[in-house]
Amino acid sequence: MHTVEAMLETHPKNLGQVDRGRLAACIQACYECSQTCTACADACLSEDMVAELTTCVRTNLDCADVCATTGAVLSRHTGSDANLTRAVLEACMAACTACGDECERHASMHEHCRVCAESCRRCEQACRDLLDAMGK
Amino acid sequence: MHTVEAMLETHPKNLGQVDRGRLAACIQACYECSQTCTACADACLSEDMVAELTTCVRTNLDCADVCATTGAVLSRHTGSDANLTRAVLEACMAACTACGDECERHASMHEHCRVCAESCRRCEQACRDLLDAMGK
Amino acid sequence: MHTVEAMLETHPKNLGQVDRGRLAACIQACYECSQTCTACADACLSEDMVAELTTCVRTNLDCADVCATTGAVLSRHTGSDANLTRAVLEACMAACTACGDECERHASMHEHCRVCAESCRRCEQACRDLLDAMGK
Amino acid sequence: MHTVEAMLETHPKNLGQVDRGRLAACIQACYECSQTCTACADACLSEDMVAELTTCVRTNLDCADVCATTGAVLSRHTGSDANLTRAVLEACMAACTACGDECERHASMHEHCRVCAESCRRCEQACRDLLDAMGK
Repeated sequence: MHTVEAMLETHPKNLGQVDRGRLAACIQACYECSQTCTACADACLSEDMVAELTTCVRTNLDCADVCATTGAVLSRHTGSDANLTRAVLEACMAACTACGDECERHASMHEHCRVCAESCRRCEQACRDLLDAMGK
Repeated sequence: MHTVEAMLETHPKNLGQVDRGRLAACIQACYECSQTCTACADACLSEDMVAELTTCVRTNLDCADVCATTGAVLSRHTGSDANLTRAVLEACMAACTACGDECERHASMHEHCRVCAESCRRCEQACRDLLDAMGK
Repeated sequence: MHTVEAMLETHPKNLGQVDRGRLAACIQACYECSQTCTACADACLSEDMVAELTTCVRTNLDCADVCATTGAVLSRHTGSDANLTRAVLEACMAACTACGDECERHASMHEHCRVCAESCRRCEQACRDLLDAMGK
Repeated sequence: MHTVEAMLETHPKNLGQVDRGRLAACIQACYECSQTCTACADACLSEDMVAELTTCVRTNLDCADVCATTGAVLSRHTGSDANLTRAVLEACMAACTACGDECERHASMHEHCRVCAESCRRCEQACRDLLDAMGK
């Protein structure tokens, strides 16, 4: 999504002290992870052994919702309260950790869980990088 | 929304140690606040003095998204990781505080901001009550 | 959610020819149905016979998303293009029909599906009533 | 988002007669357009002449919500009712048309509106291509 960068570049207000590269990477990772988790929940529901994957479906759904909201809040970077941005990033890291851990348990058996776990790890790291760049 | 209670009552799994009354109240408050903030953003956009309300629109939009996600995560209460639930509740309290404060600044002039601020305060309190009931 | 009515009443712009009662009822029904479907998906995932409920989970998730978006679009009633509002209401009716039908199949066995089916039927009817009031 | 393709490839069930390339392109376009519209709404709110851009903000917000829901419904392609998928794609095309038209009006003055209009046009076309491939 090169458009994430394009929208940051054409924004009328200065981004202040936010690291634009990290912000773009985090927005991108959030939207990607939200899609991947939505698709992984559907793939888990298609497995014959779905009864063993219900925790995975639930963490997928939680992670999809939290990442979508985080991506939207970060896309409105200009005006957001820093406390809110930080709290949302913390929630997103918690969701990605839970979902990445759960998906990893099934990664050797289900390829979609492997792809999804990688997506969660990337998003968790992108949130951490942005949080680090924001200072305390 | 009496259906929130009805869905908790008909859920096949025991809720464990969660306080059902507080959970239902918090889910209800999240959906209500999400709607109120969406409507308040639209009402602010309709005011002649919209240029003075842009911060309010942004916090409305952030709060609407965070409350919607919190309501959904809480509606999947059974399997959620407690760390994730707590982090989401913290983010929701931060969003409601920011939005409630901002709306309160305009409450004497704009009735929709007054109604919205009250909705944010109720949601913030419902999140706090649920968080307290969850223990550490 | 008496706040839906309160937000319509305090909106600075005239609603035009929209029937306020039907609009409020439809917004309320959309948010309620979105919550009910989210909770029903989670309840289905908790059933021992989850393997027979995967279609139900999927239609629940589709219906939850479509209702949430419809509720938000209707909450921004002032400026919306009438074509868009109509298309969104049509999509919401299709989602509620599919989900109501599927939940009804399991209603005698699972109480949560019964409650959810009723919620879908109410939302479908509220969308139809609003669409009728909008004229062609 | 190469992950959209990866999730389709690792899905346990056959996609049936759906054109995988068009499905992937449409999912990708929906998530991208949802982000672009969210960012364009924020950029419009940052313009000094925000009072002339309130219709743009509203169509941005509608389009962001409809595209997000369409992307999620399409990511659960396996089980969705064809009527629902078609109705959601129609709603998404209506949203992208309205938002693309409105953004185009401001494209010569505001670069973010130009980028956003292009994103809406791509998404509209991707929805149309997928709808055509689905047959009637």
